[in-house]
Amino acid sequence: MKIAILGLGTVGSGVMNLLTQNREIIEERTNQTFEVSHVYGRSNRYQIDLTNIVHTDNIEDIIQSDVDIVIEVLGGIDFTYQTIKKLLLAGKHVVTANKDMLAIHVEELSRIANENQVQFNYEASVAGGIPVILGLQHGLNANRIHRFMGILNGTTNYILTRMTQDDWDFNQALEQAQQLGYAESDPTNDIGGFDAQRKTAILSRLAYRQEIDLEEVSVKGIEELQLKDIQIAQQLGYTMKLIGLSEMQDNRIEMLVGPMLIPSDSQLASVNEAMNAVFFNGDAIGETMCYGPGAGSMETASAIVADMMGIMNFGFIGNTETKESALTTSETFPRKYYVRLLATTEIKQMVENNQYDIVYSKDNDIAIQTPIMSLSELLDSVSTESIQALYPIID
Amino acid sequence: MKIAILGLGTVGSGVMNLLTQNREIIEERTNQTFEVSHVYGRSNRYQIDLTNIVHTDNIEDIIQSDVDIVIEVLGGIDFTYQTIKKLLLAGKHVVTANKDMLAIHVEELSRIANENQVQFNYEASVAGGIPVILGLQHGLNANRIHRFMGILNGTTNYILTRMTQDDWDFNQALEQAQQLGYAESDPTNDIGGFDAQRKTAILSRLAYRQEIDLEEVSVKGIEELQLKDIQIAQQLGYTMKLIGLSEMQDNRIEMLVGPMLIPSDSQLASVNEAMNAVFFNGDAIGETMCYGPGAGSMETASAIVADMMGIMNFGFIGNTETKESALTTSETFPRKYYVRLLATTEIKQMVENNQYDIVYSKDNDIAIQTPIMSLSELLDSVSTESIQALYPIID
Repeated sequence: MKIAILGLGTVGSGVMNLLTQNREIIEERTNQTFEVSHVYGRSNRYQIDLTNIVHTDNIEDIIQSDVDIVIEVLGGIDFTYQTIKKLLLAGKHVVTANKDMLAIHVEELSRIANENQVQFNYEASVAGGIPVILGLQHGLNANRIHRFMGILNGTTNYILTRMTQDDWDFNQALEQAQQLGYAESDPTNDIGGFDAQRKTAILSRLAYRQEIDLEEVSVKGIEELQLKDIQIAQQLGYTMKLIGLSEMQDNRIEMLVGPMLIPSDSQLASVNEAMNAVFFNGDAIGETMCYGPGAGSMETASAIVADMMGIMNFGFIGNTETKESALTTSETFPRKYYVRLLATTEIKQMVENNQYDIVYSKDNDIAIQTPIMSLSELLDSVSTESIQALYPIID
Repeated sequence: MKIAILGLGTVGSGVMNLLTQNREIIEERTNQTFEVSHVYGRSNRYQIDLTNIVHTDNIEDIIQSDVDIVIEVLGGIDFTYQTIKKLLLAGKHVVTANKDMLAIHVEELSRIANENQVQFNYEASVAGGIPVILGLQHGLNANRIHRFMGILNGTTNYILTRMTQDDWDFNQALEQAQQLGYAESDPTNDIGGFDAQRKTAILSRLAYRQEIDLEEVSVKGIEELQLKDIQIAQQLGYTMKLIGLSEMQDNRIEMLVGPMLIPSDSQLASVNEAMNAVFFNGDAIGETMCYGPGAGSMETASAIVADMMGIMNFGFIGNTETKESALTTSETFPRKYYVRLLATTEIKQMVENNQYDIVYSKDNDIAIQTPIMSLSELLDSVSTESIQALYPIID
């Protein structure tokens, strides 16, 4: 088998290293030999040994080669999408970790792959090294999945862990995350929730086998999350996490990403630092969860090389295509909410009139915990301008 | 596809129910129709509708039929082993949940299945509905696994949860487990650790791809576990769990099942009631864990039907065969231990001489926490007759 790798950044070099380190078991477990014949990309900043490998910056060299499997770890959206499309049309199997591109193009690329009888695998795009997509597509295949809920972004989970455990404020925690390499210099994708939004879209599509429009996943980041709310939540027995939540009720789907309060004694609440975890609910299994590293060079390579070995073992086994667009909700499902309000006399009166459970009251702040109710009903019952913080409570 | 089911007990009826309930998605996701054509077994205590199904108590009816896939949920060892062997030789794919039989015969049956180009799947044999075997064999395929550690038996985990959370004693908790149907009237297999021992053997074989002799998995049950030790452990920040632990060091393997102390803030410590979970350590992934229901009718059926769908989708993809017998240790690897001793003057002197960390001392009891040391060294340093409790501490 001939392999090409597009991109020699952190993950690409991890793939090269893992292929070298574990060549013996990879060949033994797939019953065949392999060779990295081509590498695409300008730089080689990790100084990977490229002896006997064609190192090119012309993608045509790979499209026209006899390469069997292409591993795409370039990142980016438009160029990468165009490139993968050409590779699939040229009959190459493709493995990618590129959630940004997948969240938009997975449907079309899966169809093209099927038409060309090649495999298009993307285990590493969600939850890094954890085999969540394998579990969803094969292990839980006999289930109707009606819900999943996960910590899908390591950067924000690291930041929230520091805020929760060490009482750091957001900026201090972000700075530390950047110093440790968990956050990029422009951290918008992570802290704005967009990375988790993309992963929630990719998983929802596989969970419900319906086409998902990324824009239908509502998203709220952690930039405005205050230490105060994390601490009040803790006193109530909840831990604040950036959660990707996806639910199906009566054939309607709601998908949302944002800070949420989860019980502090729950399994998800103990997922700390840069780790990821996802709970799935299905009609036969009930509840099941997987946990592990959501990022990292070798950790992500673990999933990519497993995808590659799947192709070496089984060739084209078909790629999930969905039939119709999901019916998403224009309104969120009823939930419990944590709300912190500006404590004016008027608001105090409103809170009292609605018999909301007051969980905190100090200076200008009054925080309430609502019963299960619709968001619009909640927003009707308090004046919107007075809302300082508003997060779902997921028991 | 024609399916036969051997056994209509709790799990067999769950399989029948799931096949009925989710027929539509099963056929859609496998792109083919299926029919349960034969059922073997004398009773039908869950009164499953058997219209148009051959209900036989002669296994030859199935062997000589045109059935494609046989689902074995009979239980038992010798007869079931003989039956599966005949079915594989007759070219039938087989799906089983039978860990008792697998722990002894998996190697031979996998070889026979490969020789006959049929699939032999057994996801449900370990950790019920959780797709641990899929994860190990495919998701983590690029890793050298060097360790796993899990809560593999729901009955004992339920009992330990009651003892830990509610201060019940062992007998009280066992009685409750029996009333809830978590424990059988003869609970030896579960509380003696033998069920977890078999699962540890099955997983070790797949983790290291080496032949495992069940007898090499040391086993200690929870029958003699005292509430006192659970409570002392808690005060030290540890939770007592029945753990299946398997480790490879320098190509030697140690496998042990028994009560162990794990940190109370660890993920495994929060696995309560009858739930299961397994942590795997690999050279690329680092650490990953899966969690879910270890038993139950529909939960186990979830894994069995997924195995069946794998065969409907991919046919024969090969069964893991191992090449050589694992090198197991005659001595356990060095660890930390919790030891409770009869507090004689002599023992107190011994403990002092060895500078062990005394963590409890009351009436006739003295409990110590040792540094990392070999078991034989430990046993040499205190008089064996004085040992009231001895459990590994796994940090």
